[in-house]
Amino acid sequence: MKHTIVAWMEDKPGVLNRVASLFRRRNFNIESLTVGHSETPGISRMTFVVEGDERQIQQVQAQLFKLINVTAVQDVTHLPSVERELALIKVNATGADRSEIIQLVDIYRATIVGVELDSLIIQIGGPTDRIESLTNLLRNFGILEMVRTGRVAMVRGNGLTPIEQHDGES
Amino acid sequence: MKHTIVAWMEDKPGVLNRVASLFRRRNFNIESLTVGHSETPGISRMTFVVEGDERQIQQVQAQLFKLINVTAVQDVTHLPSVERELALIKVNATGADRSEIIQLVDIYRATIVGVELDSLIIQIGGPTDRIESLTNLLRNFGILEMVRTGRVAMVRGNGLTPIEQHDGES
Repeated sequence: MKHTIVAWMEDKPGVLNRVASLFRRRNFNIESLTVGHSETPGISRMTFVVEGDERQIQQVQAQLFKLINVTAVQDVTHLPSVERELALIKVNATGADRSEIIQLVDIYRATIVGVELDSLIIQIGGPTDRIESLTNLLRNFGILEMVRTGRVAMVRGNGLTPIEQHDGES
Repeated sequence: MKHTIVAWMEDKPGVLNRVASLFRRRNFNIESLTVGHSETPGISRMTFVVEGDERQIQQVQAQLFKLINVTAVQDVTHLPSVERELALIKVNATGADRSEIIQLVDIYRATIVGVELDSLIIQIGGPTDRIESLTNLLRNFGILEMVRTGRVAMVRGNGLTPIEQHDGES
């Protein structure tokens, strides 16, 4: 089963390296990974999607938490949460295909962010299944290039902030 | 200066680890990093934003390209390209603040993806400066939690596909 894990870490050199080598040692199959700013200056937030059973996921969580500079770890898979990603898709669009594609873009509440004579760049933000559903439809026209950010996730309601979680767990 | 670099790599264990340890050795200051599926099965696409001068950036590109399983590397900073990211922002929203926030969400063509009695979760996809501008406005209401995917980028027009690039460069 696929799990979405969020980890907060101090923005220091070598943290990414330590996390990546943990994944490597444990042979974890990372489907997507994003690292960027959090709401707290100096703290980065990493989201990754990983395939594994409950035991393996608990292990990786525990080991992540032990790493230097990692301040909190949360498996949001079974929590009420918002999970989103963004994709840019460059698709063949000539002649009559163009208006068909524009219809799909409207239906999916996506946006056209680039136009050429024979192609369009489409931006879509949303849950993974909605992005995959649009991608599958666009395949019929010929996808020239695609990039996906990978998933980010946020627990609904007033979840604890990373630092508080850390204080609670340590 | 900040550079946006795209790298295509075979989806094999250890690739992320090799890239992260290269960044570590070279002491590169990675501002954001995303890895996810590309349009080609078995090929992942990594986008990272890194601070450095032209010489340093050329070095990291050359070294990335030398890594096993990396098939192409492109600095899109000075190319005509679409650069986008997605953010989820949980903001305090009680009483009159709520309608003010909803106005901002409309102006920025953002979306409300979570509602609680005292908070909202807002999704925004767009260029980095637009996300930072909305974030700065929302700070006045109290940001409870924020996650950003980090930037992805795509060159406009009919850029070469990763494999062709690789064939051309190698």
